Amino acid sequence: MTPRISELGAHVGQRVTVRGWVTHVRSSGKIAFAVLRDGTGIAQAVFVKSQVPGEVWERFGTLTLETSVSVTGEVRAEPRAPGGYELGVAALEVIGASPTDYPIQPKEHGIDFLLDHRHLWLRSARQRAIAAVRSELEQAVHDFFYERGFLRVDTPILTAAIGERSGLFSTEYFEEGTAYLAQTGQLYGEAAAAAFGKIYTFGPTFRAEKSKTRRHLTEFWMIEPEVAWYDSNDNMRLQEDFVSFLVARVLERRQAELKELERDVSKLETVKAPFPRINYTDAVAILQGKGSAVQWGDDLGAEDEALLVEGYDRPVFVTNYPKEAKAFYMKENPDDPRTVLCDDCLAPEGYGEIIGGSQREDDYDRIVQRIKDEGLPMDAYGWYLDLRKYGTFTHSGFGLGLERTVAWICGLQHIREVIAFPRMMYRLRP
Amino acid sequence: MTPRISELGAHVGQRVTVRGWVTHVRSSGKIAFAVLRDGTGIAQAVFVKSQVPGEVWERFGTLTLETSVSVTGEVRAEPRAPGGYELGVAALEVIGASPTDYPIQPKEHGIDFLLDHRHLWLRSARQRAIAAVRSELEQAVHDFFYERGFLRVDTPILTAAIGERSGLFSTEYFEEGTAYLAQTGQLYGEAAAAAFGKIYTFGPTFRAEKSKTRRHLTEFWMIEPEVAWYDSNDNMRLQEDFVSFLVARVLERRQAELKELERDVSKLETVKAPFPRINYTDAVAILQGKGSAVQWGDDLGAEDEALLVEGYDRPVFVTNYPKEAKAFYMKENPDDPRTVLCDDCLAPEGYGEIIGGSQREDDYDRIVQRIKDEGLPMDAYGWYLDLRKYGTFTHSGFGLGLERTVAWICGLQHIREVIAFPRMMYRLRP
Repeated sequence: MTPRISELGAHVGQRVTVRGWVTHVRSSGKIAFAVLRDGTGIAQAVFVKSQVPGEVWERFGTLTLETSVSVTGEVRAEPRAPGGYELGVAALEVIGASPTDYPIQPKEHGIDFLLDHRHLWLRSARQRAIAAVRSELEQAVHDFFYERGFLRVDTPILTAAIGERSGLFSTEYFEEGTAYLAQTGQLYGEAAAAAFGKIYTFGPTFRAEKSKTRRHLTEFWMIEPEVAWYDSNDNMRLQEDFVSFLVARVLERRQAELKELERDVSKLETVKAPFPRINYTDAVAILQGKGSAVQWGDDLGAEDEALLVEGYDRPVFVTNYPKEAKAFYMKENPDDPRTVLCDDCLAPEGYGEIIGGSQREDDYDRIVQRIKDEGLPMDAYGWYLDLRKYGTFTHSGFGLGLERTVAWICGLQHIREVIAFPRMMYRLRP
Repeated sequence: MTPRISELGAHVGQRVTVRGWVTHVRSSGKIAFAVLRDGTGIAQAVFVKSQVPGEVWERFGTLTLETSVSVTGEVRAEPRAPGGYELGVAALEVIGASPTDYPIQPKEHGIDFLLDHRHLWLRSARQRAIAAVRSELEQAVHDFFYERGFLRVDTPILTAAIGERSGLFSTEYFEEGTAYLAQTGQLYGEAAAAAFGKIYTFGPTFRAEKSKTRRHLTEFWMIEPEVAWYDSNDNMRLQEDFVSFLVARVLERRQAELKELERDVSKLETVKAPFPRINYTDAVAILQGKGSAVQWGDDLGAEDEALLVEGYDRPVFVTNYPKEAKAFYMKENPDDPRTVLCDDCLAPEGYGEIIGGSQREDDYDRIVQRIKDEGLPMDAYGWYLDLRKYGTFTHSGFGLGLERTVAWICGLQHIREVIAFPRMMYRLRP
């Protein structure tokens, strides 16, 4: 039998063969230990000199960091061992040697060095924990929408021009001219919502921005639901249910990983719907009272966001931003036409915006005017306008930034560790 | 109450309000019918002239194709009605009118016209059925791997040069030079498999190829699992379990959509593991016996693939292709070094290749030689070679083309209908 390390608990008392990589060795001269990892867990292999063939003992002496091995022995529960199980070794084969110049040693390395060796850095316990939380969260996203009858729709990455926007990556597209990498799937999501009722997208989005903050990647993943007949209020209810569901799932199934990351889970356990809602105009007054220089009409910066969520034990919605601070497709607020029916969802602990959502402008004339006001090319939006021309409908949606959400849940200050191979302004490799 | 149409069964005998779009109207003068769709289903609204206010009856007269409406009435089960339920109308509001020039009328349209109006074409029953099967299949993909302890890994789209390959889309990437849109996540998946054991990717991939066949898109989605310690045989077992699982899920949960598509489900019900395996060398002999001009060393074309699967009631593996016909990273077959340990999985009914898989070359010297033989730039592969240098490991993986798989399961001849907004050589809009 060749179980994965995560399956050893089902094989206590049995002889099995485990394949994995050496992460640590020590020897007293009579008894020796090798800690193995195989990506699913870690286990300790115990070599007793008097009980193993001489060549096995000698082979143990050749093991280096990241040597790949096949170890055969009896599985024993051992609470003191890393991983909780150990193998009483009977046989050891070296599959792949690992030269002693293995780049990542058990010491401090600089971030650039680690990112240059991201393909090996991923093997660390911390990076595996982050990857497992991310993967769990992704499954939770799909389960949440599947259970609620949403169809997943894959919107295009390669898109024709939708205006002179900044921050777009572009590529030549045969004889069609220039194609741009999508910054959002939303406009397509709106068309799909009219066709399928409740939809969501899940895919990579791109920003060619010269940002070097801890919250920016040039390539990042977004989840963008769009729902026919939802107004702004329904939209926020969906958001708070969604975020609560994601956090609860990680708490339920990834405690070991959160522990590895030394995450204070008490800060996550309070994340339950409903979330507080603060009107933008009130938020500005609160921030000014706290000493911020923000003025009505400004978008909120990262510092303002952190200031605003102080004292809250769960995410906070800031609603109804000024029209000028937000995108053209947001619906005008009938109660205050200077503002739009939108929300930003700010994570607690100063992690900042994880969601931007809005009710969409569904009035044909108003959205035509907004496109003109913004100086966008009307002809590029012809198909989008059709959604308002033929049976327009109340609809709302939002975009959740996957990396920012994972960073918050894992308690990470920088999102570069949250994706397997991060892409930033100065980082295209490996 | 404002249920979705798919939820009407839970509201029989109750008064509800349904919001949706008009797909069909007819009237006898005393009784009138409007068929509504809301993306989750269809239902019939019944207007009895003598029982509704005069203005409601008049308003019925204004309904056109794709007018959006809100209809209030009592839910009745009615097996003869489209969708199985009808509403005995008490009130009708028009939300969004639909001019009579609505582009897609109940008549034949040419494919270019339909693709130009894809944002509206998606509203048809047939397109909704395809989208629902695709979405179901996507969820099934995630469930399959999640249940088996795989981590999902999102590999990068923007990648540095990995050689003078053809068919790459490229974009300027700040001061890092040119970035290329990934054709596969596999190489990154291999690094992740060494870190996490069992992984899969799920994302868009890109081919800038001037292909105009019914099986090519420039942007399509791939699922690429990669598993440490799996050999070619384990890999094929995973593939046949995976494909069987996907087909069974769609049969279990999307019968209505398969019926809408007039799919002969008996052709799907036989898709069960294990799948037959034909060695490439045998396949060539079989094909030659059937009159094909194929010669040993050639890759198999679409016609050969269709010829080969004749008479099989499930997918067929063709194994161990000649080295020259396949990519550099495939492991040499020790039993016949002219060939590699790989498989193509061919769908039945002539739908062709849906999976390409292989055991990866894990010998450092051999893969260096293959990179040299192919004329690829060694320095671009430094990080990839590290996987063979530090604790090399047996590993295998495959790539399943999502659109081809959906096209086969739905019984579609062309994959352009299988994705919401297809991208082809002459198609970048909408």
